[in-house]
Amino acid sequence: MEPVGRRAEIPTGSSLLDAAQAAGIGLVSLCGGEGWCESCIVRLAGGELSPVTAAEREVLSAEQLAAGYRLACQAIPTKDVKIEIPPESLATPQRLQVEGMSAQVVLDPPIESVNVVLDPPSFEDMRPDRERLEDALAEAGHANVSLSYPVLIDLSSRLRDLGWSIQVVLQNDQGIAILPPEMPIFGLATDIGTTKLAAYLVNLTTGETSAQTGAMNPQIAYGEDILSRIGYCREHKDGRRVLQARLAATLNDLIRKMCAEADIAADQIVEAVAVGNTAMHHIFAGLDVGQLAMTPYVPTTGQALKVGARDVGLDIASGARVYLLPNIAGYVGADHTSVILATDIWKTDRTSVAVDIGTNTEITLVAQGRLSSCSCASGPAFEGAHIRDGMRAAEGAIERVQIKNDEIRVFTIGGKPPVGICGSGILDAVAEMRRCGILDDKGALQEEHPLVRQTDQLPELVLVPADATGHGRDITLNRKDVNEIQLAKGAIRTGLELLLLESGIGAEQVENFIVAGAFGTYISIPSAIQVGMFPDLPLDCFHQVGNAAGMGAKQALISLERRRVAQDIVKQIKYIELTTHPAFQKQFMRALFL
Amino acid sequence: MEPVGRRAEIPTGSSLLDAAQAAGIGLVSLCGGEGWCESCIVRLAGGELSPVTAAEREVLSAEQLAAGYRLACQAIPTKDVKIEIPPESLATPQRLQVEGMSAQVVLDPPIESVNVVLDPPSFEDMRPDRERLEDALAEAGHANVSLSYPVLIDLSSRLRDLGWSIQVVLQNDQGIAILPPEMPIFGLATDIGTTKLAAYLVNLTTGETSAQTGAMNPQIAYGEDILSRIGYCREHKDGRRVLQARLAATLNDLIRKMCAEADIAADQIVEAVAVGNTAMHHIFAGLDVGQLAMTPYVPTTGQALKVGARDVGLDIASGARVYLLPNIAGYVGADHTSVILATDIWKTDRTSVAVDIGTNTEITLVAQGRLSSCSCASGPAFEGAHIRDGMRAAEGAIERVQIKNDEIRVFTIGGKPPVGICGSGILDAVAEMRRCGILDDKGALQEEHPLVRQTDQLPELVLVPADATGHGRDITLNRKDVNEIQLAKGAIRTGLELLLLESGIGAEQVENFIVAGAFGTYISIPSAIQVGMFPDLPLDCFHQVGNAAGMGAKQALISLERRRVAQDIVKQIKYIELTTHPAFQKQFMRALFL
Repeated sequence: MEPVGRRAEIPTGSSLLDAAQAAGIGLVSLCGGEGWCESCIVRLAGGELSPVTAAEREVLSAEQLAAGYRLACQAIPTKDVKIEIPPESLATPQRLQVEGMSAQVVLDPPIESVNVVLDPPSFEDMRPDRERLEDALAEAGHANVSLSYPVLIDLSSRLRDLGWSIQVVLQNDQGIAILPPEMPIFGLATDIGTTKLAAYLVNLTTGETSAQTGAMNPQIAYGEDILSRIGYCREHKDGRRVLQARLAATLNDLIRKMCAEADIAADQIVEAVAVGNTAMHHIFAGLDVGQLAMTPYVPTTGQALKVGARDVGLDIASGARVYLLPNIAGYVGADHTSVILATDIWKTDRTSVAVDIGTNTEITLVAQGRLSSCSCASGPAFEGAHIRDGMRAAEGAIERVQIKNDEIRVFTIGGKPPVGICGSGILDAVAEMRRCGILDDKGALQEEHPLVRQTDQLPELVLVPADATGHGRDITLNRKDVNEIQLAKGAIRTGLELLLLESGIGAEQVENFIVAGAFGTYISIPSAIQVGMFPDLPLDCFHQVGNAAGMGAKQALISLERRRVAQDIVKQIKYIELTTHPAFQKQFMRALFL
Repeated sequence: MEPVGRRAEIPTGSSLLDAAQAAGIGLVSLCGGEGWCESCIVRLAGGELSPVTAAEREVLSAEQLAAGYRLACQAIPTKDVKIEIPPESLATPQRLQVEGMSAQVVLDPPIESVNVVLDPPSFEDMRPDRERLEDALAEAGHANVSLSYPVLIDLSSRLRDLGWSIQVVLQNDQGIAILPPEMPIFGLATDIGTTKLAAYLVNLTTGETSAQTGAMNPQIAYGEDILSRIGYCREHKDGRRVLQARLAATLNDLIRKMCAEADIAADQIVEAVAVGNTAMHHIFAGLDVGQLAMTPYVPTTGQALKVGARDVGLDIASGARVYLLPNIAGYVGADHTSVILATDIWKTDRTSVAVDIGTNTEITLVAQGRLSSCSCASGPAFEGAHIRDGMRAAEGAIERVQIKNDEIRVFTIGGKPPVGICGSGILDAVAEMRRCGILDDKGALQEEHPLVRQTDQLPELVLVPADATGHGRDITLNRKDVNEIQLAKGAIRTGLELLLLESGIGAEQVENFIVAGAFGTYISIPSAIQVGMFPDLPLDCFHQVGNAAGMGAKQALISLERRRVAQDIVKQIKYIELTTHPAFQKQFMRALFL
């Protein structure tokens, strides 16, 4: 079963859902295998399954069926099968996305390493340590090597401690680390999100990921969103340094954790790549951020940036560099560059869209070989903010909602009693409410609908009655909540439409629609289409790729060629500023309708 | 009057001593103008003086007279004269040597600066700040400029604070500082001695020294000499960092003081040069020092080194670099390279010696166009250590001693009642004691001499009886004290002799004998010859040049050419290790005799 790569043997007659459960794969099953929901949707990639059932015909569209989609609870293998599980069907216990679409990248790291044995100094040969090492490197075919300052600092004790037999790690002509001979070397890739951090430890010799982990961004304590963190930096003299130091400390925790898991020392990590939105990029790199909150919102730099690991406080080899992928604009950052890199959409001749949904949603359109990008202020509704019963994607959050025959079913993270609703659940809820006629196209609840309850304020939908929740209070949605989702999805759709407008093509021409990022991985694409956030394209145009930004960072870590590609991409991209676009207002008003 | 460059008009018939006093030049006058001491010795460099007096004939040798030396108290100008005052005749109130021999250096700093005015960003022109600046620099004829990381950090706020009209300070193709347009830029030169620090603020546009100051090296609290400081670094986990930080803090005090004096901001200092012995060089630069206490005592590096001002904690422009002149060996450091550079002895075809006396004394011999250097463990006796009544050169220290007709005269720093004796005073005392037959050639006091007093321990010479001292105790010297000086001067003479031996020439062939450093400036050359520390060369061969190391640092600060020269010098020098030299023991035994 892909993408998890798990194999299972099952008794004849078992459904795919049984098989998945036997193999320890957590497939979502809202209806408990009754075949009336579509939460366990999978795709047949090889082999043969039992014929499509009536239940499946009811739930799946003809297009889905034609594309090989089935319900795992209904389909029974008739021979060996290969099954693709879309990310949204996986009840992943890991809510910090650290996996993304894999791409084959040829190993071409910016690092090489040389083993040398030096003659110890004597009264007959009193060359200083640096010159002695440089001579030995020249003999080993590496002339003109200079040692970086952090390496020089400890050179003399290091050479003596290692008994003059060493491995020199080189980046171009710079010696950046000295290790025992033959010791394996590693790299760190990290995706610094406003909310979440993901980190990967990669073996630079094999290209394999040795460990991966994630954490919340500790800067949340200084502001939930980018603007409030920039505000903190502007209002506090040392604000920028405080936020940087907190971030570095948490990254160091992740590094320690991964080193322990892979059983290596932190100074074996000799290179790093970081991506993040422009504000996170700037704060991590120690750059000014005040200008990101001032029109016209320009970054300090749009080029790729190399900073010393020491300069940003990362506890890896002290001579290591951190390579930061280039930013596209003040609100289209290196993380989006990384998504474009990882998904390779820039090199296809198909009309493609890549969208990374968050408080700011970045969109890139590739059409007729040209790239254009924009940033949409989609707001924090999809993170549960501004929604009465909203919450982050955590245990007990409703992440799936289905309404059928006036019956509401919800699915929570961790299968716990519901305590609130997170972004993907709200999106589902709004889509289902609209589909069932509970909402009109302006987002008003239809008071006559049996599921709608009158209150002394606004009419509301009771998603989960008090007696079924974890906290004993009703979980409800009202028009205000729906309007928040309309604003968010409207902003995203507007961004997409303006990119299409600028390129002179229509949404129906999009052949390849990449949805990146943690949130994008969990949403139901049909729901997103239903509410009008995404255009009504065939479902197999859509690809939910998980943390593509992290994948791009890993690619740039192990491949100089990928770094060059990233730099080329950014130069090619035309950035479209939405806030000053003449068609923005009209387009946005239109995009608000459900 | 040189080297102070003071001019004075005086009434006819006034002596040079009167003239000096009228011009505010503090000439030493031990005997109060009676003509029987030689403390006010000066040299006629132009013009005409009254005939040599009988007193002068008694005090000055025929060679001295032939070379134009006179006693200032005896000589009366008969027309306009130009007078050279040897440093030892100057009763400088400034005991921290910050002046050295001036050399004409063509201004060729490693720094240039460009004024540019940028278009502020707009929605029509959203180039990031770095790219905007790079474009403007390219337009101003500076393509391919990259900005150093410390500049990039604050670039965005700096550009906005300065209203997009700025001065970019460049070092090669790196932008290292951003200042208001046309603001003058400065450099810092510093000589980091084991005991004393000297610092100079130099205007990089004019080459002029705007301020200079000095301080004690605060590391003294962690060990008086190099070995004890290296010991501290080896025994304390953070020892190296502690010593570095203390040093940087004191240098920052000096920087603040000079900035206040010159009325500039510290970030106008955009370049620095530092010299020091190898251990001070390494500690300042943050390098390992443990190996300097282990045979064969090799430095981490012998090349010139550039480190970031931020890396070493100097509070100057954050993008500024500190250039450290190259070291010659573990105990012949960048300060000696600087002496050779400043005195230009490497480029003459005369046989020359440069000696810098300290706890370690570095000597370089230039003979037949070849340079060789050594380091002598001369010990701390000349700093007053291991001498019963010894003290540093501070107020009340006896710095001159003369014995005539069994009468002892002493001269103290600041003219204060004597409280002890410093290096130059001890050297004088030993020389005078030997000349008057108080000592034999082994350093034993002659008990029958009327000035020698018997005690229940060793016989001693009472330099100053209790009733004439500042603390009411006798100031005396005994054989133990004399032996310390014998060890010190013996080590120095041995180093010189072995360099001569290796070059196959005799001491008498030396034409030019440079005595550098604070101590070397204050000693009496005849005394040094008398005790056998220096060879018996004509007095006009000797040049006491003050803090030549600081001068060399200033030269390297304002001239790239001088940096290249310094690097060439170090490559040319043959380092002679004394401790393992086969002739060392024999030579040293011989050199101990007075």
